[in-house]
Amino acid sequence: MEGRRADRKVVGLEQVVASVEAEMARVDRFLQERLRPGKPELLPLLEHAARFKGKRLRPAQVLLAGKALGGITEDHTKVAAVVELIHTATLVHDDILDDATLRRKLPTLHTLYGIEASLLLGDYIYAVAFTVSTSLEDQTCSQVLGEVTRTVCQGEISQVLFKGKTDLTEEDYLEIIGAKTASLYGAACELGAHYAGAPGEIRERFRNYGYNLGLAFQVVDDCLDLAGDEGKVGKTLGSDVAKGKMTLPLIRVFQGAGEEGRKELERLFRDVPPGERRRILEERFDLARGVAYAREKARRFARAGLDALENLEGEKSSMEALRRMASFVLDREW
Amino acid sequence: MEGRRADRKVVGLEQVVASVEAEMARVDRFLQERLRPGKPELLPLLEHAARFKGKRLRPAQVLLAGKALGGITEDHTKVAAVVELIHTATLVHDDILDDATLRRKLPTLHTLYGIEASLLLGDYIYAVAFTVSTSLEDQTCSQVLGEVTRTVCQGEISQVLFKGKTDLTEEDYLEIIGAKTASLYGAACELGAHYAGAPGEIRERFRNYGYNLGLAFQVVDDCLDLAGDEGKVGKTLGSDVAKGKMTLPLIRVFQGAGEEGRKELERLFRDVPPGERRRILEERFDLARGVAYAREKARRFARAGLDALENLEGEKSSMEALRRMASFVLDREW
Repeated sequence: MEGRRADRKVVGLEQVVASVEAEMARVDRFLQERLRPGKPELLPLLEHAARFKGKRLRPAQVLLAGKALGGITEDHTKVAAVVELIHTATLVHDDILDDATLRRKLPTLHTLYGIEASLLLGDYIYAVAFTVSTSLEDQTCSQVLGEVTRTVCQGEISQVLFKGKTDLTEEDYLEIIGAKTASLYGAACELGAHYAGAPGEIRERFRNYGYNLGLAFQVVDDCLDLAGDEGKVGKTLGSDVAKGKMTLPLIRVFQGAGEEGRKELERLFRDVPPGERRRILEERFDLARGVAYAREKARRFARAGLDALENLEGEKSSMEALRRMASFVLDREW
Repeated sequence: MEGRRADRKVVGLEQVVASVEAEMARVDRFLQERLRPGKPELLPLLEHAARFKGKRLRPAQVLLAGKALGGITEDHTKVAAVVELIHTATLVHDDILDDATLRRKLPTLHTLYGIEASLLLGDYIYAVAFTVSTSLEDQTCSQVLGEVTRTVCQGEISQVLFKGKTDLTEEDYLEIIGAKTASLYGAACELGAHYAGAPGEIRERFRNYGYNLGLAFQVVDDCLDLAGDEGKVGKTLGSDVAKGKMTLPLIRVFQGAGEEGRKELERLFRDVPPGERRRILEERFDLARGVAYAREKARRFARAGLDALENLEGEKSSMEALRRMASFVLDREW
C-alpha cells in the first residue's frame, strides 16, 4: 500500500467542483433525461450505469474552463454531458474487457446483465453522446470529440495488441496513454474554452493543461492498480498485471531488474496465473520503486499542465479550481 | 434447404447496383481512405474488416435515392460511407456476441485478433462514422443517424434480454427488427432523398420504402439462419436458435406446435446443447411451414416498400434499381 504524501494538504474532490456545483447538477439532470430509455426493458441497465457516478473530472473541466473564460452557457452543459457519456461508454466496454467485477463499489454491468447486453449498452451510450453532440449548433464539439473518440479507441487497441510485450518502452507507454486517456481530458478543456468564445491560442493552452492532467491521471491510475487499496479505489485492482499490460511502474521494474530479474518477470507474465502475479511482484521485486518513479512522472505532468495556464487571466474561483484539480489527480486514493 | 422460387427471375445484386457503379466505387475509395489507421498495429485489423465487403445495400440505397431525385453529390458519398461504417461496426460487435466464426466466408475478426481488440475496433469504426458524418455541413445526417444508431442498439439489447422468451409475439418481434435493422435502411433512403433536396413528403416515402425493405431483409435473414446453406450465405448459421433468439419462423413453429409440442420446444431451448437445436427442430417440427410463413410476411413488407414509391417521379434507372432491390432482398441466398 502506498503512504499518503504527508508534506502537503490533500485536496478533496469537493474543493475542485465547488465553484461549479449548480452547473454540475444541471449536467446530471440533463444526463438523466437523455439516458431515459425508449423501451422499459433497458431501464435497469441504464439506471445501473448512471449509478457509476465517478469523479466527473472531465465534465468539471468543461464547466470550469467555460466559467474561467467568460461564463457557462447551455452549450457547456451539453458538451460536459457528451464528454461524460463518451467516458461512461468506454468504462462499460473496459469492464467487459478487463472482466472487472467492481466499478465504483458496485457490481459491473456485465456481471449483472451479461456481456452481450453490456457491450450493446456501451454502443447505446456512444450513440446518445453522438446525438446530444449533434444537437449543438456549433459542430466543433462533434468534430473534436469524433476525432478524439477514434484516438481513444486506437490507444486502447494498441494497448491490447501490446499485451505481454515486456520490452514496451516508456515512450510507447506515454503514446498509448496520451491517446486512450489524455486526449479526452485535453478535448474537455479545449471545448470548455471554445464554447466560451476563447481564441485559438487560449484553447490550445487549455487543451495542453487538460492533456497533461490526463497523463498524470492515467499514470496515477496505473499506480493505484498495482499498489492501491481496493476498498478505497472501489474497483477491481491488479488487472493490468493480470492482463499483461505494461504500465509505467512495471516498465520501470523491468528496467531495474537486471538480466536475471527480467527473465523471472517474463516467466511471471507467461506462466504465473493472472491472479497471483501482483502478489509475486510485491514479494520479489522492488515494486515500490517503480511506483515511486511513476508518481514522480505524474507530478511532472501535472506541473506541465499548471504551467500551461500560468499568467492566464480568468475568473478566479475557476482558475483556482483547475489548479486544485492537479493536486487532486495526484493525491487521490480512488 | 429452401428451394429457389422458380416462378420469377431471380434478381442478382449486380442488377441492383449497376446504375450507381461508379459512385459506389467512389464510396469504396472514400471508406478505404477513412479507415487508414493512425497506428501501424491497427492496419491488419482494419484491412480485415474492410474485406467483409458485403452486399452494401444501404449505401446503394443512399446513392439510388439521390440519383432518383436529382443527382448524387459529394454529400451522398459521405452519407453512404457513414451508413456502411455504422453497419460494419454493428457486424463486428454482433460477431463477438454470436461467437460467429465466419463472416462473408472469412474468419470473423475476434477469432483472429481476440475479443478485446475486436470490441474496440467496433468502437473505433463507430467513431470514424461519427467523424465523417460531422464533416457534412448539413447536420441532418448526424442527427438522423445518431438517433437511428441509438435505436439499433436498443433493438439489439431488447433482443438479447428477450432470449429464451418463448412467448415472444410476432408483434414484439417486428418491433425489435424494426429497431435493430429496418431503422437504418429507412434512414439510408431518407437521407439519400434529403441530400438531393427532396421535400419532407418525398423523404418520408423513401424512408417508408427503406424501412419496409429492411423488415423484409431481416425476416429473410432469419429464415436463412434456420434454413439457409452456410456455403452460400458465407456466415455461421443456426446461431439464432443456438442463442435462444425467437425469430419469426420459430415464433410460428411455436404457435403451430400444440401444447405438447410447445413443451418439447421449451425443453429444446432449455436443455438441448445449442449446436444440436437446429437439427432437432428440422427433424421433429414443421420448420418448413414456419419458414414459408415468414417468407410470405417478407414478401408483404417488400410489397409495402414498393407501394411507398408508387407513382413517384424520378430518374428511371434508379427507380427501377430500387424496385429490383426489393426482389433481390427476397430471393437472395446470401
